[in-house]
Amino acid sequence: MEIHVVKKAGFCFGVKRAVDLAFQVAEDDSQPAVTLGPIIHNPQLIEKLKQKGVEVVDSAPDDDSTIVIRTHGIEQDLFDELKRSGHKIIDATCPFVKKAQEYAKLLSDEGYQVLILGDSNHPEVKGIMSYAGDGASVITADSDLPRLKRKVGIVVQTTQPLEALKTLISRTVGKVTELKVYNTICNSTAQRLKETESMAKNVDVMIVVGGKNSANTTQLAKLCESLGIKTYHIETASEIEAGWIRGSSKIGITAGASTPEWIIEETKEKIKDIGG
Amino acid sequence: MEIHVVKKAGFCFGVKRAVDLAFQVAEDDSQPAVTLGPIIHNPQLIEKLKQKGVEVVDSAPDDDSTIVIRTHGIEQDLFDELKRSGHKIIDATCPFVKKAQEYAKLLSDEGYQVLILGDSNHPEVKGIMSYAGDGASVITADSDLPRLKRKVGIVVQTTQPLEALKTLISRTVGKVTELKVYNTICNSTAQRLKETESMAKNVDVMIVVGGKNSANTTQLAKLCESLGIKTYHIETASEIEAGWIRGSSKIGITAGASTPEWIIEETKEKIKDIGG
Repeated sequence: MEIHVVKKAGFCFGVKRAVDLAFQVAEDDSQPAVTLGPIIHNPQLIEKLKQKGVEVVDSAPDDDSTIVIRTHGIEQDLFDELKRSGHKIIDATCPFVKKAQEYAKLLSDEGYQVLILGDSNHPEVKGIMSYAGDGASVITADSDLPRLKRKVGIVVQTTQPLEALKTLISRTVGKVTELKVYNTICNSTAQRLKETESMAKNVDVMIVVGGKNSANTTQLAKLCESLGIKTYHIETASEIEAGWIRGSSKIGITAGASTPEWIIEETKEKIKDIGG
Repeated sequence: MEIHVVKKAGFCFGVKRAVDLAFQVAEDDSQPAVTLGPIIHNPQLIEKLKQKGVEVVDSAPDDDSTIVIRTHGIEQDLFDELKRSGHKIIDATCPFVKKAQEYAKLLSDEGYQVLILGDSNHPEVKGIMSYAGDGASVITADSDLPRLKRKVGIVVQTTQPLEALKTLISRTVGKVTELKVYNTICNSTAQRLKETESMAKNVDVMIVVGGKNSANTTQLAKLCESLGIKTYHIETASEIEAGWIRGSSKIGITAGASTPEWIIEETKEKIKDIGG
């Protein structure tokens, strides 16, 4: 049995940076620490941080805990409130997400009606939206367009596929005089999708590893399913059932940007054990 | 026999304005006048102006003639040279083309690498190009892209189809961080194409009237041909042959933005005569 792992599977630059910052704070015994919302969308890693005393909170605690801001970023109001609260802040917002927030603000300041391409329920998008000014809208590639002004600006949730951006632009450009697009799609996401697609076409089963609450992991699973390949989305190796892979000669493994390396390794070992 | 004329056939706003300015100058006996290049792409109208003493020239004449700048505009250097020459200048550049020139300059000033979607041999595009700064390129929707920088700006020859702009953007947006598009496509062109397409689908023969050197007239003829309809591109009614339309029950007439009303009327009359 052959086991192939997508090269770009697992932590991207922004997640690695955020996790490193969170564990550094966790190791510092001089002060308690919390993360505002889950630092990344991976329950197993959140559990590890909890074991080290770093809890997830929804708002600033009453004690003097250091507050770590998660990789997806937070709303502008909340950020300002935290700064005023006197807490020590560690901003683990992904630098690419930070850019998207800044571009949204810039477009708004320059008088553009801002469209954010993404999932309105995702914390990253909620954060970007808070910088995009009055009259901004969150839309998907196919959802109804709002009433458009003469000058429209677009920023993109970093994990959106490029095709969605192309579709949105094609639907918009004929209706406006000026269109300014910040392509804030993260290359790492695009590459992971590309490599995953290419692998899925050459194996019998795809195992997609990562948080069920991780948008980019879920996207990988959907992609594999759309190609008609037998696909299983798991969070940990323990979920794998022997029946899924018995009789298969080629197994592919991919994982989202928030999936820790150790879980990918355990998945590989578990498949080897079953295969052997 | 039914004869249908496309409502938007003939002079657009910019052409009407340019022609009115040229005839005003022609009527003014106090001073000779010339047009720098043909004022519009219609040989018959150019001939009428010539009969009134307004010749087409390639560069500023030695006498004190008033110089009329044609609707497609001219290069920035030449414009500056004319202003310095002391000649009286009547700028009949279409206001929409002027906008495209201004946007090209603005994009260049703001540090964008400028792409001009259009035909590099067309005088309008040559004019826009002269404002677009170093490193600007003229491209068609399908031609090879130049090496792209991080910030790319697009302006469009006013007579290009919207589909071409969508194609160019789709090919560009994934390769850049920032894309600023000025949609300088003239609505009048789009509407004329749309009405012509709709009429061509409901007649037996399409007669397309206008200068053989008129890009937008030629585009109308190509559109009709691409729909598989019997199409004839003429400059004057005298070219029409009885055999083209005999036996047809529905004849459609369309005309480019630079085709004078009197030629469209003559065409209609000639067809009526043949039909009767």
